[in-house]
Amino acid sequence: MLGNFSYCNPTKLYFGKGSVMNLNEELPKYGKNVVLIYGGGSIKRNGIYDEVVHILNENGKTVTEISGVMPNPTLEKLYEGVKTARSAKADLLLAVGGGSVIDYAKAVSVSVNCTEDPWEKYFISNEEPSCETLPVGAVLTMVGTGSEMNAGSVITNTRQKLKIGHVFKDEKIMPRFSILDPTYTFTLPRYQMVAGIFDIFCHISEQYFSGDDDNTSDYIAEGLMLSLIRSSLIADKDMTDYEARSNIMWTATWALNTLIACGKTTDWEVHMLGQAVGAYTNATHGMTLSAVSMAYYKHILPYGLAKFKRFAVNVWGIDPDGKSDEEIANAGLSAMEDWMKKLGLAMNITELGVDPSMLEGLADATLIMEGGYKTLTRPEVIEIFKNSL
Amino acid sequence: MLGNFSYCNPTKLYFGKGSVMNLNEELPKYGKNVVLIYGGGSIKRNGIYDEVVHILNENGKTVTEISGVMPNPTLEKLYEGVKTARSAKADLLLAVGGGSVIDYAKAVSVSVNCTEDPWEKYFISNEEPSCETLPVGAVLTMVGTGSEMNAGSVITNTRQKLKIGHVFKDEKIMPRFSILDPTYTFTLPRYQMVAGIFDIFCHISEQYFSGDDDNTSDYIAEGLMLSLIRSSLIADKDMTDYEARSNIMWTATWALNTLIACGKTTDWEVHMLGQAVGAYTNATHGMTLSAVSMAYYKHILPYGLAKFKRFAVNVWGIDPDGKSDEEIANAGLSAMEDWMKKLGLAMNITELGVDPSMLEGLADATLIMEGGYKTLTRPEVIEIFKNSL
Repeated sequence: MLGNFSYCNPTKLYFGKGSVMNLNEELPKYGKNVVLIYGGGSIKRNGIYDEVVHILNENGKTVTEISGVMPNPTLEKLYEGVKTARSAKADLLLAVGGGSVIDYAKAVSVSVNCTEDPWEKYFISNEEPSCETLPVGAVLTMVGTGSEMNAGSVITNTRQKLKIGHVFKDEKIMPRFSILDPTYTFTLPRYQMVAGIFDIFCHISEQYFSGDDDNTSDYIAEGLMLSLIRSSLIADKDMTDYEARSNIMWTATWALNTLIACGKTTDWEVHMLGQAVGAYTNATHGMTLSAVSMAYYKHILPYGLAKFKRFAVNVWGIDPDGKSDEEIANAGLSAMEDWMKKLGLAMNITELGVDPSMLEGLADATLIMEGGYKTLTRPEVIEIFKNSL
Repeated sequence: MLGNFSYCNPTKLYFGKGSVMNLNEELPKYGKNVVLIYGGGSIKRNGIYDEVVHILNENGKTVTEISGVMPNPTLEKLYEGVKTARSAKADLLLAVGGGSVIDYAKAVSVSVNCTEDPWEKYFISNEEPSCETLPVGAVLTMVGTGSEMNAGSVITNTRQKLKIGHVFKDEKIMPRFSILDPTYTFTLPRYQMVAGIFDIFCHISEQYFSGDDDNTSDYIAEGLMLSLIRSSLIADKDMTDYEARSNIMWTATWALNTLIACGKTTDWEVHMLGQAVGAYTNATHGMTLSAVSMAYYKHILPYGLAKFKRFAVNVWGIDPDGKSDEEIANAGLSAMEDWMKKLGLAMNITELGVDPSMLEGLADATLIMEGGYKTLTRPEVIEIFKNSL
C-alpha cells in the first residue's frame, strides 16, 4: 500500500544554455554579502568563474571566497568555511560546482549560526538545525548527486574515518535556486561523466528495487531509467550532444529529489557496499557502485523476482514469451550489464584496487540497510564482495 | 532540442489517509482569520466539513465561509468572495473541494487587494498581480485538475459567455499546502471518477503529443500514463481500492504541475475542442474530452506518426513486429479506445447532447492551438466534430 508521506521541494531551477544569466533575477533577493564556494579551480579554467563573478559584481555584491572544496568535503574544511562565512556576514552562499560543493555549502548554511559542534549535532546525532540557516544557491557544473534540489549533505571526518550523510527535513536547507546549464558539464572527463551516469542510475534503482506495491513512483522511476539509458549511449558517442547531456542533467535532478521515493520503501545497499569500497580505495563514487552492482543484484534477485522481472520487461525491453520468470529477470540484468560495459564502467572492485585481504575490512565498513528485498548478513556481504573481485 | 525553462513548485503536499491532521502543522503559520471555501455541500454530508472545522477551531481560528462555489466558478461569485475575504480580513484562504474550489480560491487570492477589475486584469489581459496576494491552502476531495499544485485558475463570465483560464507565473499563487487523502475521493460517483481519470490522462497526452525531441519529460509522461491506466482498471472494479485511488490521485497532481512540460512544446487542442462542447452542453469536463479525443487523434496521427508509434509501443504494449508504422500507431489508438470504453467514458458528442446543427457554433467556440502535430484549420475542426457525433 502506498504509504503516507509529505512532499515539498521549493528549489527554483533555471535550466538550459545560458541560464547563468538568471542569477540576475535571484541575486537581488539577497543581501550584499555573497560567499562564493567552489572546488579545485576547474571553473577558473573553463570560464564559469569569470562569468559568475562578473554577474556578482554587476549586482553590486561583496564577494568572499571559499575555494578548494574537495570531492569528499572534510570536517576541517567545514570549520574553515563557517569562520569565513561568519566574518563575511554572509547573506547568501553561492556554490559553483558539483554535488560536493553544494553539499558543503548546505553544511556551512546550517552551521554558521550554530552554537553546538555541527559534526556532533548534524552528522552523529542526526538533529535538525535549531538556529537560523543561510540561503544557498547553486550553479551546477557536474551531474549526478541531485544535491541541486535536495536537502542532503555529506561530510567526511578524516580523523574518525567516517563519511556521514544527513538529509535534512527542513526544505529551507535545499538550495533556494539552482542554475542547470548542460553545456557547463561538457568539459568534464569521460570517466567522470560515465561514473556520474551510473550514480544517477543507481539512485533510481536503489529506490526502485524495494517493496512490492504497485505505485506511481516506480513508473516514474522506469521512465527516468529509460531516458537515462537512451541519453547515456548518445552522450558516450558525443559528449557534446546537448539533448543527451541535458536529459542526463534533468534525470539526475529528479532521481534524487525525493519524488520517486514518495509513498514507498527504498533500499540503498549498493551505496553502502560502494561507499565501503570508496573508503578503502578512494575510487570515484559512481565506479564503486558499478563495481558491486552486478554481484549484489544477482544475489538479491531470487528475493525480489517479480520486480526484477518487471525491470527486465519495462526497462530493458526483454520479451517475456516462452521464458520462466527467472530467465526473464536474469535477461534483464544481462542487458543492464551489457549497457554498463558499453559505457566502460568499472565492473569489478579489483580494478579499483581492492584485494582479497581487504574483504573483512570492507564488510566491517558496510552498513546493512533494511529496505531491500533481502537484508544482508555479514557472510552475504563478504560473498558479494568476493563475487565483485 | 530540450528548450530552456524554469521550474519551481513550492506547494507542500501531505499525502495519505488521515493527512487532514497535518492542518495542525500548517495553520499556526498563518494569522487568525481563515476563510473556508467550499462547493455545494457534499463535504457536509461526508463529514469532511466537520473534521476541518473542528481542526480550525482547535487552532483558535476565526472562520468565515464562502460556500456554493459552482463547478464552473463565475465572475459574480468571485466578486462576492472578494468582498467576503476583505471584510473577514482574511489571513488564509482554505479551499476544501476539487479543482473548481481551489481555482476559485486562487482567483480570490489575487483579487482581494487588487484595485483593478480582476476579470479585465487577469483573465482578459492575462496580467500578473501587482498587489499582495493571500495564501491559499487546499484539502482535495476530487481528483483531476492538478489545481492542488499549480498556479492555474479558470473563471467563467456568464454574461460574456467566456470561460478563461490563467496560469499565473508567480509560484506564490500555488497553494502553500495541499492535503491529499485518497479516501476523501471514495464517495464520488463513478461517473465523476472515470471522467476525472480521463481528464488526467488527457492532461498527460496533451503535453506528450507535441514535439519530436527525445526528452525526459516524455518518459515521465509515459510512466504516469502507465500507472494511471493500470490503477484506473482496478478502481473501476473497486472504487474503494486504496492503492489504485491513491495512485490516481498522485498521478493527477504530477500530470499538471508543469513537470512534464519542462523543456518541450505542448498541444492542448483536445481541451479546446472539449471546452467548446462543454459550453454548448454543460457536460462533465472529462467526458467532453473523451468524446472528441478519438476523432482528434485519428486526424493528427499522420502528422505525428513517430510519436503515435512510440505511444503504441511504450504505453499500450503493442508488439511492433511485422507491422508498418501506421499499423503500430493505429493499434495504439485502438487499445486506448478499448480502455476508454471499458471505463464507460463518453465516446461521442451526440450522447452529450450535441446535434449537427451546432457544428458551426462549436467551431466558432474552439480555440486553435499551435503546439500540436497539425495546426487545425476551421474545416478540420468541423470534420473532427462531425467524426465525434
